[in-house]
Amino acid sequence: MTSAEPETRPRPTHTQRAVDSFVLELSARHPGIEVLAPTPETGPYRYDAATAKTAAPDAGTDGPAVVFPASAGEVQQVVRLAAELGVSVVPRGAGTGLSGGATATAGQVVVSTERLTAVIEVSPLDEVAVVEPGLINAELNARLAPHGLFYAPDPASFDISSIGGNIATNAGGLRCAKYGVTRESVLALDVVLADGSLVSVGHRSIKGVTGLDLTSLFVGSEGILGIVVRATVRLRPIPVARRTVTAFFDSTAAGAAGLSAITLSPVRPAAIEFFDTPSLDNIDSHSGTSLRGRGAALILIELDGYGIEAQSADLAAALTAAGGRVTVESDDDGVRLWELRRSGRGLPKDKWYIGEDIAVPKSRLPEVYAAFPALEARFGVDISAVSHAGDGNLHPLITLDRQPGDDPAQPPAALQEAATELVRVALSLGGTVTGEHGIGSIKQDWAALELSPRIRQAQHAIKSALDPHALLNPGKAI
Amino acid sequence: MTSAEPETRPRPTHTQRAVDSFVLELSARHPGIEVLAPTPETGPYRYDAATAKTAAPDAGTDGPAVVFPASAGEVQQVVRLAAELGVSVVPRGAGTGLSGGATATAGQVVVSTERLTAVIEVSPLDEVAVVEPGLINAELNARLAPHGLFYAPDPASFDISSIGGNIATNAGGLRCAKYGVTRESVLALDVVLADGSLVSVGHRSIKGVTGLDLTSLFVGSEGILGIVVRATVRLRPIPVARRTVTAFFDSTAAGAAGLSAITLSPVRPAAIEFFDTPSLDNIDSHSGTSLRGRGAALILIELDGYGIEAQSADLAAALTAAGGRVTVESDDDGVRLWELRRSGRGLPKDKWYIGEDIAVPKSRLPEVYAAFPALEARFGVDISAVSHAGDGNLHPLITLDRQPGDDPAQPPAALQEAATELVRVALSLGGTVTGEHGIGSIKQDWAALELSPRIRQAQHAIKSALDPHALLNPGKAI
Repeated sequence: MTSAEPETRPRPTHTQRAVDSFVLELSARHPGIEVLAPTPETGPYRYDAATAKTAAPDAGTDGPAVVFPASAGEVQQVVRLAAELGVSVVPRGAGTGLSGGATATAGQVVVSTERLTAVIEVSPLDEVAVVEPGLINAELNARLAPHGLFYAPDPASFDISSIGGNIATNAGGLRCAKYGVTRESVLALDVVLADGSLVSVGHRSIKGVTGLDLTSLFVGSEGILGIVVRATVRLRPIPVARRTVTAFFDSTAAGAAGLSAITLSPVRPAAIEFFDTPSLDNIDSHSGTSLRGRGAALILIELDGYGIEAQSADLAAALTAAGGRVTVESDDDGVRLWELRRSGRGLPKDKWYIGEDIAVPKSRLPEVYAAFPALEARFGVDISAVSHAGDGNLHPLITLDRQPGDDPAQPPAALQEAATELVRVALSLGGTVTGEHGIGSIKQDWAALELSPRIRQAQHAIKSALDPHALLNPGKAI
Repeated sequence: MTSAEPETRPRPTHTQRAVDSFVLELSARHPGIEVLAPTPETGPYRYDAATAKTAAPDAGTDGPAVVFPASAGEVQQVVRLAAELGVSVVPRGAGTGLSGGATATAGQVVVSTERLTAVIEVSPLDEVAVVEPGLINAELNARLAPHGLFYAPDPASFDISSIGGNIATNAGGLRCAKYGVTRESVLALDVVLADGSLVSVGHRSIKGVTGLDLTSLFVGSEGILGIVVRATVRLRPIPVARRTVTAFFDSTAAGAAGLSAITLSPVRPAAIEFFDTPSLDNIDSHSGTSLRGRGAALILIELDGYGIEAQSADLAAALTAAGGRVTVESDDDGVRLWELRRSGRGLPKDKWYIGEDIAVPKSRLPEVYAAFPALEARFGVDISAVSHAGDGNLHPLITLDRQPGDDPAQPPAALQEAATELVRVALSLGGTVTGEHGIGSIKQDWAALELSPRIRQAQHAIKSALDPHALLNPGKAI
């Protein structure tokens, strides 16, 4: 190469120049705010957990600018400057999202909440905690345990995902059927709007109906309406007892059909997880267990609260009548089984895969499982699914063998086609394309299958009402 | 009077003429839709339960036009015609609202949901019901009982209020601390928007995060964003047991302080109602009971679910330690006590009164009660309050003796001033001006005390985004 080498780099785009200006101005005006200029070092901020796995090899390519505000006031300063310079802003929690909601380009500014991790207050008498958005979900619960309290929303990522990210996606989890999704645990928010103003919405009480419910609107809005800088969340007393119950069945179909026995019983478990045959095979293969020796499908249940013996007895009777082989597990075995649920499955390193997040009315779960074989035959894929069965939310894993000539950055079309067809199955059963992960940047096409043009127009109108210049997380969620 | 008498009637205003045109056009284009022209007969539609009591004597004055659509399609036809003619539309359920949210003027069209009362579906397997908005809350529960299911939101008006009205106000009730407010039980809605389009939002599953959460936004929006024509609501199994527990204390202050003992216990009752001394006196006087013989303050609790004996024992221990005289009531006594809670108090016929709906963080309830004496002395009023103590929601009753010269349509200023000062007390404790009744038309000034100008601006921007011509229920909620 000659001395002209630097000239061969592509000329920066308009947005890239604007971001460079942003970094210079921010450092000049607010030198206390930590900022990373767009360099290859910030490349990882272009992805979240959904998009990183198919990321193109890009060492040496600039990422976005990244700021690390340490207070609500600093978030305001960042947003005001970005608005002034016309640079779009991507809020980011822990980057564990599964729909590309926090992905950013080289021309954008990522506002990371990594420095906003304080537990500002725990109030046992009001049963609330006031926290900053970057706080990790599990860390909050660790801080609450000495008070005998817990924060209910428990996405499987709770060890690594942030409260702010959970709020942005209205994260679900295992215990939602009993305790609700994130929205039901968020009472009040402080939010920095697109014009840099800081507003407080909601209440520290369970009730409060002063005007439109903006708190619920911000929850699940994936950062397109504002940046949450503080949240007042609802707490609950740790249950007086917990018990794990298993019911094994002879086939996926038999197990899926058995789920209705729980619904028709008076027992409402904290969590109801359903594993089909290939999911059990996967766990046994990855974790060295022998679940398949006990059956070909598993309903894994957590009971909690008062009357745990009577709950267990009523549930066991219902599931036994439905053909299940029921065991009330020991505490140790219960812990192991829930650990297997959360991290016992292996992701296929040598295969292409897509993880889905469809949900259907819970009575229709058997029909979703019954649809797998035809899709497998049609697209040459393998499909398995673990479900949060209490709320009809499935996480199908669709896999396809890698071929020698495959482009590592370009999954075969059949994989995406199978995934889309499975989404159509969910919609045909009255379901949704995403139960708890969100639309982000990668499910926009699927959202269009679910939402009418008039609803999408209404969503864009609300976005424009709060962010007329489309500054915040453009191209996400809606 | 002379033959010129008709001429002395005031000339109709522009809006009144527009409403007359609306009635004529509707009858011509859609003769199947029942409509009442604006006459004195429609006068009652100018009021709801909040505004009727101070209504001016107005026999002979025209009310609004009233339409009674019998299908979603007819609601669309009504709204489209109103939009075409520029006539504003006031959605109305059962008219039991307590904030003037359904009040209408002679120049408006009331869209009554009285003909939309169908239970379209009850699905025990999905634990949902699909209903029309005019259905009375208690009627839904009567229809669910044979299935062993119930709909949890239970505003005190449940015998007479409609599901649509409950949704419009995000109604609360007694069991909210355990089961959530109306929003937590509404999964999906069909809504007619201001342009007459019919949209479906939400999901039939507990989870679903496709785009912005418009379902939650419509809940509590008091009819300013759209008219709900169908709702999919969440059901729950009727608990296996229920039990009523009472704890009497020697003073209002002692009882209010005792509430924290429940919070610090592991028991989470379905309902926790607190009665201060004058509220017990009121019930005894009105209902011929002798509650005051048992104490000067009462915490009335409903437990439900599994382990009812253990729950009762833990709760009794906690309340006894807090100084309460605790009784686990017989089933019959329990029924009587809850009936006294709902309708045992008398409204003072010979006095002016205002009923409030403030809420505070529940640890601050004792401070609200402690503030009553100074307000009573300052404004010459009497104040008592029953509280939904589990969620910090008080219903203070502020009364003032009527004087011979009082104008029946004009309450003394001291009454409203005392009410406003009590609202300020709630706000100073981190509370809200309305826990469950809504802003409607009569609490706009109080809303301004609670919400920042920027929040109010955001609320109006959202309203404009969905209803740019301010067709739906103008002047309400925000």
